[in-house]
Amino acid sequence: MAIKGGKYGEHRVSETKGALPQTADKIDNDMTKVYSNEIIVDVSSLNIDSASFAQLKGEFDGDTAKIGAKIMEIVSERGKMQNPVTGSGGMFIGTVSHVGEDIISTDIKKGDKIASLVSLSLTPLKIEEITAIHSEIDRVDIIGQAVLFESGIYAKLPADMSAELALAALDVAGAPAQVAKLVKPCQSVLVLGAGGKSGMLSCYEATKRVGPTGRVVALLRDHTEKEQGDFILKNKLAHAAIYADAANPALVLDESLRANNGSEYDISISCVNAPGTEMGCILPVKDGGTVYFFSMATSFTRAALGAEGVGKDVNMIIGNGYTKGHAEITLSILRECEPLRSLYESKYL
Amino acid sequence: MAIKGGKYGEHRVSETKGALPQTADKIDNDMTKVYSNEIIVDVSSLNIDSASFAQLKGEFDGDTAKIGAKIMEIVSERGKMQNPVTGSGGMFIGTVSHVGEDIISTDIKKGDKIASLVSLSLTPLKIEEITAIHSEIDRVDIIGQAVLFESGIYAKLPADMSAELALAALDVAGAPAQVAKLVKPCQSVLVLGAGGKSGMLSCYEATKRVGPTGRVVALLRDHTEKEQGDFILKNKLAHAAIYADAANPALVLDESLRANNGSEYDISISCVNAPGTEMGCILPVKDGGTVYFFSMATSFTRAALGAEGVGKDVNMIIGNGYTKGHAEITLSILRECEPLRSLYESKYL
Repeated sequence: MAIKGGKYGEHRVSETKGALPQTADKIDNDMTKVYSNEIIVDVSSLNIDSASFAQLKGEFDGDTAKIGAKIMEIVSERGKMQNPVTGSGGMFIGTVSHVGEDIISTDIKKGDKIASLVSLSLTPLKIEEITAIHSEIDRVDIIGQAVLFESGIYAKLPADMSAELALAALDVAGAPAQVAKLVKPCQSVLVLGAGGKSGMLSCYEATKRVGPTGRVVALLRDHTEKEQGDFILKNKLAHAAIYADAANPALVLDESLRANNGSEYDISISCVNAPGTEMGCILPVKDGGTVYFFSMATSFTRAALGAEGVGKDVNMIIGNGYTKGHAEITLSILRECEPLRSLYESKYL
Repeated sequence: MAIKGGKYGEHRVSETKGALPQTADKIDNDMTKVYSNEIIVDVSSLNIDSASFAQLKGEFDGDTAKIGAKIMEIVSERGKMQNPVTGSGGMFIGTVSHVGEDIISTDIKKGDKIASLVSLSLTPLKIEEITAIHSEIDRVDIIGQAVLFESGIYAKLPADMSAELALAALDVAGAPAQVAKLVKPCQSVLVLGAGGKSGMLSCYEATKRVGPTGRVVALLRDHTEKEQGDFILKNKLAHAAIYADAANPALVLDESLRANNGSEYDISISCVNAPGTEMGCILPVKDGGTVYFFSMATSFTRAALGAEGVGKDVNMIIGNGYTKGHAEITLSILRECEPLRSLYESKYL
């Protein structure tokens, strides 16, 4: 009978008292001693986080043999594929080989193909062999095994789309799913960074949720994003598309109010992949409204002090990449919206 | 007839297109051209932000004459008292000398004594003379004038307490006021950093709000905070006081669940003035619950990736120092709770 481990994988951390797998330098990747609340997966591919893969490409001048050797070295030293320079991980795809007897209320069984939705930076991983490196899409095919903890999240790969398309969408699944929970009929919503991968999904979901009496405005950086703006309008992902640098709050305020009949918004959603855009997200929102920061470039102090500085009584939320059902919500969008699915297939695979 | 300026003071920024007063290097502090939506205040004291004052003391070895000269130089160059090293400001106290004709729905008039509740880092300021420097409490008495913009917030100084006591509380007014809005009867609440200035006020307000059927647990760092823990229990600011380093998530989880009959919490509130405590705030909260980060040491990415990493579906809020009525809510606590008022008078004046 296997021993039961901690819900968050604490049992695979040894060196730092009280540490969790993500913050630990090294975790135990021994696949021969399996705990009763772990799932073991035969891994076929790693999708390395893009910041991490870019760092590796830079360090080794794109030499895939050297990149592969470095990945083997990192995983062998740390027990996980967490790039020591960027601190980031990625996701994996694989086939379930074992479900511990203390894993309850799960819908997976041995043989299921799944994608992990927790970061590789906290996932025990063992690599036997690297079989291919696809530099252009940050993917590494391997023979190996990984552990999912009791708190770990994953998605069964759908039968009606390629694993690559599913992964591209699942990578940003938190954003549209949080929008689905947050946005209500009749509201006005401003989406900043609307032209990117999470921005388009968020626009689609917001437009669906506000219904015929609401209004969604997509903000794009400038006319280099005209193509995305036209796509959004043509496919009715939003009611209007406007162009302004999100780091210029006075300009964002002017343009966004003009696009909403002079009224402030109920909600703004930040998908902008650039720093210094907090005030651009805060100013257009009415008192009592909500600012949802999904962008990882968000600064906590700039947001907190910025809202106070202008006396804005808004609810500011830190984007949580996880919410219940986020994978299903996001994959459903690709099923519902054929143009978005085609765009994703042409752009992100 | 005076010209109307921007709501956020954009009209006093010249050099950077689209910038707001807080991010601008220099703002216009000319008090002879007053806009119709500005309030002018005769300033008697500046309460310099503690990080800023500590930097000045360090730079000039505590020499108050040199500190004074540096403050004059900064204000003369930038048009505001924003320390170029720390970026922070502070607050001011003064007497209203002019209320612009386009300031509507305000309860102040010429002659009222007020404290500004927006940062000096965005407030146009002119200093004629520094009359005293009180190094031990970061206060600088001056003869000068400041501008409050249409979006600026302030509090009338109450007649039933000293200006110093009011200021000490107003400095952290956002925390208890947000707690008042957030916490509902019957809930369980964990306050981390409960022994500090904002932590104690938050405990008091949370205990009041949860009522007889709820439970508030105060988390203190270690037994060096035993005095604060005993004070909290003796004066019923919380139902229990526990001791754990907030940066040790596994320990915080153990201790906090034990103090709540093994159950996860509805809400956690972070007032911890130390980095790396995000997971300690997230883990004890149940799915669907709320984590309120009031601490300025919070990292956006650590919170966002941390919650995702452990599959926690919690609502994470960025502490906004401003919410409607925050000054009145916080001053009321000092009127209601005599022991807390005495503690503040002995500790923070």
